[in-house]
Amino acid sequence: MDLQRVLSMKSGVDESSYFNNSKMQGVIISKTKITRQEVALEAYMCAAAGQTMSIAELGCSSGPTAVLVGAELIEAIERKCAQLQRQPPEFHLLLNDLYMNDFNTVFRSLPDFYRQRSGVGHCFISGVPGSFYGRLFPSKSLHFVHSSSSLHWLSEVPEELQYESAQYLNKGKVYISKSSPSCVLDAYLKQFQRDFRLFLECRAEEIVTGGHMVLTLMGRKKSDLTLLEDCYYWELLADALNAMASKGLVEEEKVDSFNAPYYSPSLEELKQLIESEGSFSIRSSEQFEAGWDAVDDQHTICEKGNGRPSYAQCMAKGVRAVLDSMLKSHFGEHILDDLFSHYSDLLENYYSLNKAEMTNVMVAVERN
Amino acid sequence: MDLQRVLSMKSGVDESSYFNNSKMQGVIISKTKITRQEVALEAYMCAAAGQTMSIAELGCSSGPTAVLVGAELIEAIERKCAQLQRQPPEFHLLLNDLYMNDFNTVFRSLPDFYRQRSGVGHCFISGVPGSFYGRLFPSKSLHFVHSSSSLHWLSEVPEELQYESAQYLNKGKVYISKSSPSCVLDAYLKQFQRDFRLFLECRAEEIVTGGHMVLTLMGRKKSDLTLLEDCYYWELLADALNAMASKGLVEEEKVDSFNAPYYSPSLEELKQLIESEGSFSIRSSEQFEAGWDAVDDQHTICEKGNGRPSYAQCMAKGVRAVLDSMLKSHFGEHILDDLFSHYSDLLENYYSLNKAEMTNVMVAVERN
Repeated sequence: MDLQRVLSMKSGVDESSYFNNSKMQGVIISKTKITRQEVALEAYMCAAAGQTMSIAELGCSSGPTAVLVGAELIEAIERKCAQLQRQPPEFHLLLNDLYMNDFNTVFRSLPDFYRQRSGVGHCFISGVPGSFYGRLFPSKSLHFVHSSSSLHWLSEVPEELQYESAQYLNKGKVYISKSSPSCVLDAYLKQFQRDFRLFLECRAEEIVTGGHMVLTLMGRKKSDLTLLEDCYYWELLADALNAMASKGLVEEEKVDSFNAPYYSPSLEELKQLIESEGSFSIRSSEQFEAGWDAVDDQHTICEKGNGRPSYAQCMAKGVRAVLDSMLKSHFGEHILDDLFSHYSDLLENYYSLNKAEMTNVMVAVERN
Repeated sequence: MDLQRVLSMKSGVDESSYFNNSKMQGVIISKTKITRQEVALEAYMCAAAGQTMSIAELGCSSGPTAVLVGAELIEAIERKCAQLQRQPPEFHLLLNDLYMNDFNTVFRSLPDFYRQRSGVGHCFISGVPGSFYGRLFPSKSLHFVHSSSSLHWLSEVPEELQYESAQYLNKGKVYISKSSPSCVLDAYLKQFQRDFRLFLECRAEEIVTGGHMVLTLMGRKKSDLTLLEDCYYWELLADALNAMASKGLVEEEKVDSFNAPYYSPSLEELKQLIESEGSFSIRSSEQFEAGWDAVDDQHTICEKGNGRPSYAQCMAKGVRAVLDSMLKSHFGEHILDDLFSHYSDLLENYYSLNKAEMTNVMVAVERN
């Protein structure tokens, strides 16, 4: 599976698009807003006294928050400059995602953004396609880097688990599970460590001394890798796939050979990796739950009742908008409607017994 | 007509796309290659001794040359550095076009580009959506700027000619024509002067001292604005539209109210505008013809006979790929097949009596 080609949020702005099914990611963006703005102001004060402040959004996707996050940061810095009676810098907002991301949708929203800013200082926006597990920007060119709901995606499925192997180590599962053998846990952990270290090394080249970075990603509550509450959305997806396989609607081998290129670390794990890589100092860190019932800022969230979709239905559509291209590429498009209908039922059942929350971890770091 | 929304080359890579119908633009790119490389080397030597050399391609479109031009320049500079036994700089290639440009197609071609470069130095590529008649890049951030087959597009149809006016000054024509009243010529000339001056002022902010720019655009052979050989492709498009109007297939008022947001200057005119704006010194200038029979480098061109399309058919498809969205927006999509079938016949007839050539003008300038 060439992830550079098959990992992309569902493009466009129609009913099933990522644009219209990324409310959870919006909730996470809202929950981290205050920290993000504080840290970006710190980056401005420490590192961007010059004429241009460069802000990168890594894994911007094509949803409504692609430009919003940067826009809010820029406004916050402009307000601070007004308070300090300083001339605000020119801003350069760099929006990154993989080559297959729907940048056209993002770019077509920019005239509205610029109209709202008319009369304010300069803000230049670029799209930077490519994997953040490699260099993306010139050396020492960034002052603030943000990434939300992206770094839990690995650069690839751990090699040991890939389809090409002689056997399938993680039969009937699509991610780490209670029944996965320890070599599966180990393969995932090592892949994340390699990837996250590479991420830090690349950003260390690109970020100026005193520049800052705020990273938020899906995380685990505890050090245990296999707690159901941390990976129930994968467990239930495997259940839905296995149910289809048992009816002959999907080849069993297809299920056995599919593993998600995903890993959710604990906060401790993340902090240890940052400390051992050594280019960045941790300024703050946080673990928090994001539930679909959070209503925050301008983000409205699916509510139960009144004919509106349930949490489970919203979650299923959200997961589908994220996994669409990946599942299509592995299983074919024809199974998706059935799969997500069944998945939605399984989620409904799960939420009737458990909280509809997902753990996130956030770290704010400064380039030494 | 909001040009930011309706001026975009036909997207995608199908048979009618700009990608597959931009051979003329490819010929022009080939013809200017040697000058472009010399001037980019000059820019490197004068201005980009630092770690990163920034190269902007303005009006990159979504055709095969979007990345190619920058890639060739980078290779030329890398070769020069190898000769001089110098470490080549990091490169930052900035691809600009309007918001509606199909950047997705451009970005999806990048993995191949990077594969070919594997093992060579860093080259970072960004997409920068927006009009080059406004600021696009941070101050003093560019070392070399290139634009080909783009600057003949105005920022808007001259106000005096727009659909909203009480009368249509350029009835039955779509561009400057022998029968256009002098106020039409004047309106076009003034619009170009305003636009081109604004272009120079914006680039003067963005280009470092010693940075260079090579601009190629459609031009006129002589100072006379109305010579048929300089604007036959507009004259014949008007003829095709008028023929459809006379059959009741297009409203006459639609034809009367359509004017191309286009202007092709003479080389003298262009040089005078650069001199009077004052930020740039002219290093070289050239006027040349580009014909569809030119076969240059790796660019293959439509040839007559053997069941291949004629020049006229290629030209008609090329013009359609460029004007597609603009004509759709004004006349509706339903007329386009008929219109371009008739246009192709008119071109066929024209080329049976005249040379299939188009005048281009090129200037190379240095930021003072």
